[in-house]
Amino acid sequence: MSVATNRPAPARAAGFDLDAYLARTTTAVNRALDRLLPKATARPATIHKAMRYSLFAGGKRMRPALCLAAAEACDGSWGAAMPLACAVECIHTYSLIHDDLPAMDNDDFRRGKPTNHKVFGEGIAVLAGDALLTQAFEIAAQCRAAVRYPHGTIVLEIARASGSLQLVGGQVADLEAEGQTVSAAQLRYIHERKTSALLGCATRLGGMSANCTAAQLRALTDFGYHVGLAFQVIDDILDVTQTSAQLGKTAGKDVAVQKATYPAIVGLERSRKIAAQLTDKAFAALKPFRGRAVALEALATFLLQRDR
Amino acid sequence: MSVATNRPAPARAAGFDLDAYLARTTTAVNRALDRLLPKATARPATIHKAMRYSLFAGGKRMRPALCLAAAEACDGSWGAAMPLACAVECIHTYSLIHDDLPAMDNDDFRRGKPTNHKVFGEGIAVLAGDALLTQAFEIAAQCRAAVRYPHGTIVLEIARASGSLQLVGGQVADLEAEGQTVSAAQLRYIHERKTSALLGCATRLGGMSANCTAAQLRALTDFGYHVGLAFQVIDDILDVTQTSAQLGKTAGKDVAVQKATYPAIVGLERSRKIAAQLTDKAFAALKPFRGRAVALEALATFLLQRDR
Repeated sequence: MSVATNRPAPARAAGFDLDAYLARTTTAVNRALDRLLPKATARPATIHKAMRYSLFAGGKRMRPALCLAAAEACDGSWGAAMPLACAVECIHTYSLIHDDLPAMDNDDFRRGKPTNHKVFGEGIAVLAGDALLTQAFEIAAQCRAAVRYPHGTIVLEIARASGSLQLVGGQVADLEAEGQTVSAAQLRYIHERKTSALLGCATRLGGMSANCTAAQLRALTDFGYHVGLAFQVIDDILDVTQTSAQLGKTAGKDVAVQKATYPAIVGLERSRKIAAQLTDKAFAALKPFRGRAVALEALATFLLQRDR
Repeated sequence: MSVATNRPAPARAAGFDLDAYLARTTTAVNRALDRLLPKATARPATIHKAMRYSLFAGGKRMRPALCLAAAEACDGSWGAAMPLACAVECIHTYSLIHDDLPAMDNDDFRRGKPTNHKVFGEGIAVLAGDALLTQAFEIAAQCRAAVRYPHGTIVLEIARASGSLQLVGGQVADLEAEGQTVSAAQLRYIHERKTSALLGCATRLGGMSANCTAAQLRALTDFGYHVGLAFQVIDDILDVTQTSAQLGKTAGKDVAVQKATYPAIVGLERSRKIAAQLTDKAFAALKPFRGRAVALEALATFLLQRDR
């Protein structure tokens, strides 16, 4: 049952075995990440152990899955999309390591495991994040680029989604909002940057790897934006409604540090409605694919139905 | 007079006005950085103020100068090399911001000014470093790539020099060496990564922007490596021999935290000799350019003659 709605999954995605799909994408992504990163024994071993600790800490690989599913929707292959899926996951993991630092969100647990700085110390955690961010570009620079989207375009896409005007900017705005009165518009600004930017980037990169048309890229952009926002609204809702054990991280943390969240600003019921509306818009964005975006639809449905 | 030797500058560089050259490169680089980075007022303003604070804190712009001079040696233009010069300076600045953090070298001053985290707080300092690292790739992705060196090659060059096996790896090894007995070989490993990697990258990128030949690239690689190592050995020497006021940062810091340095391991006189030998090798590497690398020669001479 969905956090945001009581509706069943849309008809098209109903016959789609998402669990099996996610098992396949996760296995393939983990294998690719293992191949693309320096071995844990590579000198200096500490940094590679630290990078791999967080990269293989049980992340749901939603961004890579979105990337691969977007490539499929555009008749592309997993092979071409995989390096970009891995690059985005490196960026996502780096952002979590740095966000968890004492100077930022100060989280001791992530996905039920001690955070990077609790295991390796703050200095190495900062550097592990730096190295994963850099690794993302090293991987992207070596992808098999499609005709319409050469390496310059691919790298620019990742850098813009991750930079001071998007991902990093969102974290800055989030830090500055703590303990402040925040409007719904400001909160949307934060969530667009902290979550939508990279989810949208993952989705767009999947299309790019498949040499998608401009119209397809617009549809994927629209889809990624709305799924990303919905995802974050639900994250806010879960922080209020679930226990730490269910979440695998410290629940109620947002409330404790007076962090701006949708439930805190517009209430729980209105938050659920917003999440549902965003998902409707995401589904609408997929119409141009005329049924070929079944994996993307199933993923969007899953993102609204998840309970942790 | 040189820190490492009592010899005058080599004959070729003698007629070259390095002060005027550095004034020109610095002005051009500062103007380009100002144009390439988001304005200080761009939302969220805090991150852009923090990025610009450290980027415009009076750095000597040696890496950009090496990049531009390398382009000249290969008959290239400043225009083509400038974005890459700026990208490298963004990487260098990010690495300083993160190295200065309390969890790493814990430095309160840099170039006579309070370090980024002293002004903006640790959280924003981490994010400002992240944003500058990302900005470097955003800039590189938009450079005018030469025929032999497309964007994928350029981005890969920067990512490898900055990643866990080079720049970040050097900082990790440096952190781990504190308070430990370090061999000269281990120290060289650290310095190759902390300094040579990015200086060499800057020099190579200059050649790449000029569509240099494979032989020219090899010469620039050899040059950058040796200049970089010499630069770091001299940095170690200056930390022992100069006052804080002369350096614009806390002198004797390396000794105080038992940091591995050349003077600590091989002594001051031997350190000076090593620096001089490395510079000789750097000059030798420039021979294939037959006098067209006058700016690179002058820069190498300057790096040995500097007293802060």
